[in-house]
Amino acid sequence: MKAQVLNKYDDDLTASSWVDMQDVPDPKIEKSNDVIVRIGGAGVCRTDLHIIEGVWREAVDPTGNELLPLIMGHENAGWIEEIGPEVEGLKKGDPVIVHPHITGGTCLACRRGHDMHGEGSAFPGVDCDGGYAEALKTTARNIVKLPQALVPKEVAAYSDAGLTAYRAAKKASRHLLPGEKCVIIGSGGLGHIAIQVLRAMCAADIIVIDPSDTSLALAEECGADELVKADGNEVQRVLELTKGLGAEAVMDFVAERGTTAKGLAMTRNMGTYYVVGYGEDINVSAFEMITTEKNIVGNLVGTWAELTELMSLADRGKVHLSTQEYSLANANQALQDLNNGKVKGRAVLIP
Amino acid sequence: MKAQVLNKYDDDLTASSWVDMQDVPDPKIEKSNDVIVRIGGAGVCRTDLHIIEGVWREAVDPTGNELLPLIMGHENAGWIEEIGPEVEGLKKGDPVIVHPHITGGTCLACRRGHDMHGEGSAFPGVDCDGGYAEALKTTARNIVKLPQALVPKEVAAYSDAGLTAYRAAKKASRHLLPGEKCVIIGSGGLGHIAIQVLRAMCAADIIVIDPSDTSLALAEECGADELVKADGNEVQRVLELTKGLGAEAVMDFVAERGTTAKGLAMTRNMGTYYVVGYGEDINVSAFEMITTEKNIVGNLVGTWAELTELMSLADRGKVHLSTQEYSLANANQALQDLNNGKVKGRAVLIP
Amino acid sequence: MKAQVLNKYDDDLTASSWVDMQDVPDPKIEKSNDVIVRIGGAGVCRTDLHIIEGVWREAVDPTGNELLPLIMGHENAGWIEEIGPEVEGLKKGDPVIVHPHITGGTCLACRRGHDMHGEGSAFPGVDCDGGYAEALKTTARNIVKLPQALVPKEVAAYSDAGLTAYRAAKKASRHLLPGEKCVIIGSGGLGHIAIQVLRAMCAADIIVIDPSDTSLALAEECGADELVKADGNEVQRVLELTKGLGAEAVMDFVAERGTTAKGLAMTRNMGTYYVVGYGEDINVSAFEMITTEKNIVGNLVGTWAELTELMSLADRGKVHLSTQEYSLANANQALQDLNNGKVKGRAVLIP
Amino acid sequence: MKAQVLNKYDDDLTASSWVDMQDVPDPKIEKSNDVIVRIGGAGVCRTDLHIIEGVWREAVDPTGNELLPLIMGHENAGWIEEIGPEVEGLKKGDPVIVHPHITGGTCLACRRGHDMHGEGSAFPGVDCDGGYAEALKTTARNIVKLPQALVPKEVAAYSDAGLTAYRAAKKASRHLLPGEKCVIIGSGGLGHIAIQVLRAMCAADIIVIDPSDTSLALAEECGADELVKADGNEVQRVLELTKGLGAEAVMDFVAERGTTAKGLAMTRNMGTYYVVGYGEDINVSAFEMITTEKNIVGNLVGTWAELTELMSLADRGKVHLSTQEYSLANANQALQDLNNGKVKGRAVLIP
Repeated sequence: MKAQVLNKYDDDLTASSWVDMQDVPDPKIEKSNDVIVRIGGAGVCRTDLHIIEGVWREAVDPTGNELLPLIMGHENAGWIEEIGPEVEGLKKGDPVIVHPHITGGTCLACRRGHDMHGEGSAFPGVDCDGGYAEALKTTARNIVKLPQALVPKEVAAYSDAGLTAYRAAKKASRHLLPGEKCVIIGSGGLGHIAIQVLRAMCAADIIVIDPSDTSLALAEECGADELVKADGNEVQRVLELTKGLGAEAVMDFVAERGTTAKGLAMTRNMGTYYVVGYGEDINVSAFEMITTEKNIVGNLVGTWAELTELMSLADRGKVHLSTQEYSLANANQALQDLNNGKVKGRAVLIP
Repeated sequence: MKAQVLNKYDDDLTASSWVDMQDVPDPKIEKSNDVIVRIGGAGVCRTDLHIIEGVWREAVDPTGNELLPLIMGHENAGWIEEIGPEVEGLKKGDPVIVHPHITGGTCLACRRGHDMHGEGSAFPGVDCDGGYAEALKTTARNIVKLPQALVPKEVAAYSDAGLTAYRAAKKASRHLLPGEKCVIIGSGGLGHIAIQVLRAMCAADIIVIDPSDTSLALAEECGADELVKADGNEVQRVLELTKGLGAEAVMDFVAERGTTAKGLAMTRNMGTYYVVGYGEDINVSAFEMITTEKNIVGNLVGTWAELTELMSLADRGKVHLSTQEYSLANANQALQDLNNGKVKGRAVLIP
Repeated sequence: MKAQVLNKYDDDLTASSWVDMQDVPDPKIEKSNDVIVRIGGAGVCRTDLHIIEGVWREAVDPTGNELLPLIMGHENAGWIEEIGPEVEGLKKGDPVIVHPHITGGTCLACRRGHDMHGEGSAFPGVDCDGGYAEALKTTARNIVKLPQALVPKEVAAYSDAGLTAYRAAKKASRHLLPGEKCVIIGSGGLGHIAIQVLRAMCAADIIVIDPSDTSLALAEECGADELVKADGNEVQRVLELTKGLGAEAVMDFVAERGTTAKGLAMTRNMGTYYVVGYGEDINVSAFEMITTEKNIVGNLVGTWAELTELMSLADRGKVHLSTQEYSLANANQALQDLNNGKVKGRAVLIP
Repeated sequence: MKAQVLNKYDDDLTASSWVDMQDVPDPKIEKSNDVIVRIGGAGVCRTDLHIIEGVWREAVDPTGNELLPLIMGHENAGWIEEIGPEVEGLKKGDPVIVHPHITGGTCLACRRGHDMHGEGSAFPGVDCDGGYAEALKTTARNIVKLPQALVPKEVAAYSDAGLTAYRAAKKASRHLLPGEKCVIIGSGGLGHIAIQVLRAMCAADIIVIDPSDTSLALAEECGADELVKADGNEVQRVLELTKGLGAEAVMDFVAERGTTAKGLAMTRNMGTYYVVGYGEDINVSAFEMITTEKNIVGNLVGTWAELTELMSLADRGKVHLSTQEYSLANANQALQDLNNGKVKGRAVLIP
């Protein structure tokens, strides 16, 4: 099959092209519950740029030269192409979205439904071959069948970016009550999904902070109640909007350039600061934490069950994801555009 | 002041008039945290008819002749008229809604926020004088100040009927996830509020059952996803809408004429049947309960904190209550209309 | 291998013997995750008597003649004998306990950890061959490896009876606070486990009700704070012990001969009545449920994860199970003794 | 009455005496729900040293010279001496413990039971006169009547130190399951209470870390399962005890000298780090928080309801507090001993 292959790292992201279109062997069913998915769309994620830069090398390729060549692509949707001999309930041609994390399913974390914390796992597109290709090998446990109204290439990016936003927003939505406030820092790829999820799942007032007017306009479309320009006075502005007390929940999709300190400063006593983005350190005195009883909650990709929940929201039109399509052959263009901030919404590669 | 006074019971509700407009002494501040509210509107509730019939006599008037004369009216809103010497944060003229249950605030239930289960309580309009009058005595603990957009006479009925629907729907909304189903049995005075609360606070699919086309039309306006005519086949219809499995939550605002058995039959394994209405017995085998792990949850009026939450929803236009106004002088007409099924939405008496 | 086989039903349990020791084919690995367990002990449960009587015939053998011959036995522990080609982490000789419910693991209920509500399941010993034999076929998903201190034959009965008691007591333990009360109705096979679980997992006062002095003595050993003889005055006695208010949790391991009504009468406002036993109907007025805000919760066997939790308690000596051993050849004796109330603790068959 | 009065700050704690025994006016009932308590014992807390040093000056005495003279003492128990005209359920001579935080009881936080986050509050002994005296003025809302088995001077220190440990340990106990681990950093005045609370309220394995052998011996008496000497290798030791994964809960009663980083390093993925002590900053990368989904939870003094729960534990002998008595006249000695690390358990002043 055709695939876009990463053959070498590029530490400063200055090369003119990063991946090469190559003929590679088709993926093969090896285990009884393996599944081959024909790719309908593969999302292009900032993590892919980080892989190219080698940021993940230490974590997933410790010897430094065993992981490459790698087919990236961890946000995949398409159609069932082939199933292992013990797979039930799936057949060739079923439209599906693929949960990104392959787990065994028998450890205690898996058995309690905490898929992302399962032992002995794989993450196609990061530590083994992913979906920048015509087909992908995964397992039956990773497959969510799509409701009829949803098209693979339009939903592919929900499988990682959307699912992370969903999980964090769902956590907040379960404790936010009418009259309470939720601040969203960053109305980008994840943030604009989180706004829609909160709007669907609770009745809190949603305050969105972003430096970009375009992003704030998107936030308004998604259902934000208050828009706050990130101009240096955003903490003060949120305090004004919350009677000086701060918000019961603050979700930080940026977590760099000082947003962590600002986010905590906007969090009300007994409230929760959810960190989703990353880039800087969180620094807070123990004294501040105990006198305010604030909570800080880390957030990772959601579970398989949560992916089904997110697909239910999408199917009912309660969340919508902006995508920009590129052919698989143009993967380098998509990556360059992402690196240059030229992608509207989420770039998706179509084989 | 003027008040409509119940001077005698009428066991079969056949009298031509039940309450008498009389001059009665103005209520007086007695304790340091007492508050006098000038009534803006007093909701007329089916419980008032039950009081007239004597249904509550055993519970609240055991000797049978000490409670009357009684001023009914337990759904009250208006303006602060006078405050006790230690009341803080309230002043004459503030528009307010009155939580119906007077509690001491110091018992363990109160201290945990479970107002309705406080020890040593009073319920104006049921066991002492209520709001079918120009003014009402209550306490500072019962007062919720109204947001600017809300008018006392339009929200009075939230204080009992609306608050009961809110509490039950809130309980369900906190566990219902996208893709899950909630059945509402009865789209009347409480049910239509519950639909709106669920729509605001979760993303479950809402299925509404009612025998009346008018009520089903109201349900649709309130945000129901599926309408089911109560024609004898409603259990089968809900099973069809839920892949034969039933709904994760069923809220029964009727609980008579067989709805309890039907409601439980529509409840999915591990699901919860919320009973809010009353009139018949719930009868279910222990075997059925254990093999299905169903839950049955009773629901009473909400807490003071929940009344503030409901007012937040109303203030943001997320719930709306239909009311039909009567002058206080026409209280008997309102009660007769209610008894004859002629009230659209909730009757409210205006002094 | 040798197995005790049920060849025909005995509706009134009057036959002198019910199962026959026969040579049957050894179980074979068929699927990649199948596991064969050599039986170390198989618990003898009252459900087995119900199977013999044909109580389950309608549920699991609707045509009435396809299930038999059946090897009963759904409470099994032993050692791994053989594993399917894709099983990881298990090897021949590992001491194990077997979760009784075989599930696919891919449906939404399974993925959320609700094993007992998985679709398309099997229950060896009830609807396919179980553990009254030298070996049992199950799957890798059903295996919990035993901590070193635990011996298969001593823990076999935890896999169903113990696990059911654990799940119900765990639910209660998570909301019971110091100073609150928990009533246990029935200090038998399940009840005495529940007492120990509550003692380990919360600080509520435990009140145990039983008609038998022997059972009450066992309850005291297990950590009960108050013993109440079931002599007809047990509701009044519990009310005396709870300032007239009832208990925050009531767990009914009997649910026949009137205990359901008594159990609800002992439940405090806002409290929860857990039904675990079965035999009669629960009958309660909707009016009673709403004015008290009581909850009724059904309870089934626990999950695989809960079986690991229970094994942790057993391993640390926080729960202990009384067993009485019989050789597999004496299975009829064990069943007769159980039917005649002559078994102390749990009967276990040893091949 | 006699009282020990702080008349001036001592920034470096070098004065030979800090408080002066003086005759001061008896406290007077002013509001209808005021209560005067005759002091049976007043705990001496490290916070009192911080007040003397002026650490709290900025927070509670911003002009720097209005707070003094101050009677310190915020951990008080004794007997009701006098009650305001509207106080119910209390009478002269009742033995009581005093919740330290005076709140109005009508704000939303109070109404939801979150006493410590109520608006418009006072904290006797910190921002108004406390219990280093023969009597104290508080309110009916602050009073918890003591069970018969408890003596005021023996329980006084539960009202702040004990209550803080209780609240944090209770939070952890509600999610810790059998087989899970809880690390306690610091087995001192608060830590040794937390161990006992966890032992009573959950079945997790308790690992205690402390540099002092005496404290570790106390931990063992209190029910710790594993003792770890804080010798620089404590993180590695905890990882060894937890299969390299860390603990589901880590409670840090120190939060200085590097324990915050160590505590987070010992916390398992999805686990929770509870901070109770204070002294240093928590510093953690957002990347670490999101890839591990860890939670950081701040902890303050418990609520009035939690004080009743803690008294239930004490009454049943499930927690025990070591105290060392000093006469009120010897307050300076108690404070000096505390400052010099010479107090075993908690110092209590007896008038």
